[in-house]
Amino acid sequence: MDDRLKKQIDFILAIDKEKNILRQTHLTDHGRAENDAEHAWHMAIMAYLLRDYANEPVDIGRVMIMCLIHDIVEIYAGDTYAYDDAALKTQKAREEEAKQRIYSLLPEDQKQEMMAIFDEFEEFKTPEAKFAHAMDNFQPLLLNNSNDGADWIRHGVDAAHVYGRQSQSRMGSEKIYEATDEILKENIIKGRIKP
Amino acid sequence: MDDRLKKQIDFILAIDKEKNILRQTHLTDHGRAENDAEHAWHMAIMAYLLRDYANEPVDIGRVMIMCLIHDIVEIYAGDTYAYDDAALKTQKAREEEAKQRIYSLLPEDQKQEMMAIFDEFEEFKTPEAKFAHAMDNFQPLLLNNSNDGADWIRHGVDAAHVYGRQSQSRMGSEKIYEATDEILKENIIKGRIKP
Repeated sequence: MDDRLKKQIDFILAIDKEKNILRQTHLTDHGRAENDAEHAWHMAIMAYLLRDYANEPVDIGRVMIMCLIHDIVEIYAGDTYAYDDAALKTQKAREEEAKQRIYSLLPEDQKQEMMAIFDEFEEFKTPEAKFAHAMDNFQPLLLNNSNDGADWIRHGVDAAHVYGRQSQSRMGSEKIYEATDEILKENIIKGRIKP
Repeated sequence: MDDRLKKQIDFILAIDKEKNILRQTHLTDHGRAENDAEHAWHMAIMAYLLRDYANEPVDIGRVMIMCLIHDIVEIYAGDTYAYDDAALKTQKAREEEAKQRIYSLLPEDQKQEMMAIFDEFEEFKTPEAKFAHAMDNFQPLLLNNSNDGADWIRHGVDAAHVYGRQSQSRMGSEKIYEATDEILKENIIKGRIKP
């Protein structure tokens, strides 16, 4: 086996650990905590199915790989809950260090390629990045809504925080944001999200 | 929310159940059983990273969505272990029924589109389907090899069975098959796969 393939296999085995990074979101039917790999899998399929709702035309292959890898840094940096303000402050530095560490397992050209895809997601500028972020927000929203808002209730989240995060979806898809807004309003009325 | 988006959301929530379908493969470091969603996530990233090894040029976006959805039927049909001959005999019929059931949640055009992607994978004829199958074989092989062949040992699998399945990878990628052959020979020598 040549050196290039060996490095690729080392990376492939290293990212297996993403299956052990637990999120705050729970599976449907009040299931167990979801992990990052499952979340990414779900997001990528959603992106494919909902691609016509992107505000601008997107390269769907690029959106999918972006969705699939966007949380790999959490293998070393840990999951940062979207409404944990303290952890959010250190997130960027932790994830930058983790990015260098994990992608350095790959051959140099693929290290650069994959870091560029991750950076594109983080920079939130291209139509693909904006649409991938809309999926990153919409996926846990759908799970949580299907669980009667249990995760919002548990964390005592308020509307300002949820809208602060979820309103970013508008950049990627007005249509998905409209649906988000409808779901959030229902959950505020039902007292699952503090006003 | 319009009817089309409602149907898409129904499908998105229904496939969440794939995260509960356990496979025979175990995570690295002798971890727990892997589930179908994690397996599909891993395969899709592998396809992206290893795409240059496909025997013929592939539309990588199509390979990725094929990898991501290829096991969704198992939500209703259950997982069929690659070396369980009895279950393999009923697999086709069980999965055909499950396919109709799950994809009927989608709007009609997307139902047809997603079933066509699944059928293309199953028919094993296009370069994309052949390469996706190579990933479907190589992913559990890598995990199992990293676990000292524990899954092969547990099932008492013999070389004829493993090669019967794994040699199909050659159709998608000679390069991946060469690496597979190298890994299998090592595991036979070490007594983890019966000769």
